[in-house]
Amino acid sequence: MADNWQEEVSQLLQQCRIGFLATEGEYSPETSMAPFAIYQGNIVLHLSTLARHTKNITTNNAVGFMVCTAETSDKSALSLPRLSFQGEIKAVPDKQFQAAKCAYLKYVPDAKLLFDFADFTLFQITPSHIQWIGGFGSARKIPVNSWNKLNV
Amino acid sequence: MADNWQEEVSQLLQQCRIGFLATEGEYSPETSMAPFAIYQGNIVLHLSTLARHTKNITTNNAVGFMVCTAETSDKSALSLPRLSFQGEIKAVPDKQFQAAKCAYLKYVPDAKLLFDFADFTLFQITPSHIQWIGGFGSARKIPVNSWNKLNV
Repeated sequence: MADNWQEEVSQLLQQCRIGFLATEGEYSPETSMAPFAIYQGNIVLHLSTLARHTKNITTNNAVGFMVCTAETSDKSALSLPRLSFQGEIKAVPDKQFQAAKCAYLKYVPDAKLLFDFADFTLFQITPSHIQWIGGFGSARKIPVNSWNKLNV
Repeated sequence: MADNWQEEVSQLLQQCRIGFLATEGEYSPETSMAPFAIYQGNIVLHLSTLARHTKNITTNNAVGFMVCTAETSDKSALSLPRLSFQGEIKAVPDKQFQAAKCAYLKYVPDAKLLFDFADFTLFQITPSHIQWIGGFGSARKIPVNSWNKLNV
């Protein structure tokens, strides 16, 4: 296990603008794609109530989220570094809204117009379990307090 | 809605070697990454029993799977074309094993050595619900019989 997981994790989070949400759906768990930002250790998502994942989280707000190195033809698909989270998702509280919105738009600037749409809400996942998979057969748990100390 | 969704779906499946699996985990749904192939309309995955998603599917074999266009700096993160499946996952039956293995290795050639590892099993997801999201606000259900007619 490399000792520099903090640096690798920070690098991944700087490179990626999208992640994959796992929610409990009508027939089975469902994967969906969502652009994200990190703000104060939470994963910030901007979701439409018209989308199925948003309906799913109103029934069960326990979710998973993965951020994975984008595949390219020169990398093995078996060993793409990736970060997996589990936690609860809820609307960003009013007090944090402006700061979380700014953080989100820094990651996803072209989402600016969507903040004028009434069906979009800013959500945050507060991670309770975090796992870093640095490559093939290389996984480690990241304690929440270590995650919260990361400067991302 | 473009009329050429079949072509767009085929193109995406030819470009991507990885997808994102949603399984029911201990605390919440979980997202994991897995290289995949399509064989006879099923999504073929080669999973290790040491991995958490494999433990999850022994408890509940209803899963989700998403294949998404890789992000690049010149594409909007909001509108990446993607394909979402729900269905049941099970081990590939013995009769189909060799053909499914060949199909998988055509997509993921560097997984060849893993077939010698005792902890890996070839699984298939048989899709029951399929959705194509061609871009922002553009989603359509794909009936299973239309999916099965696609030449991918």
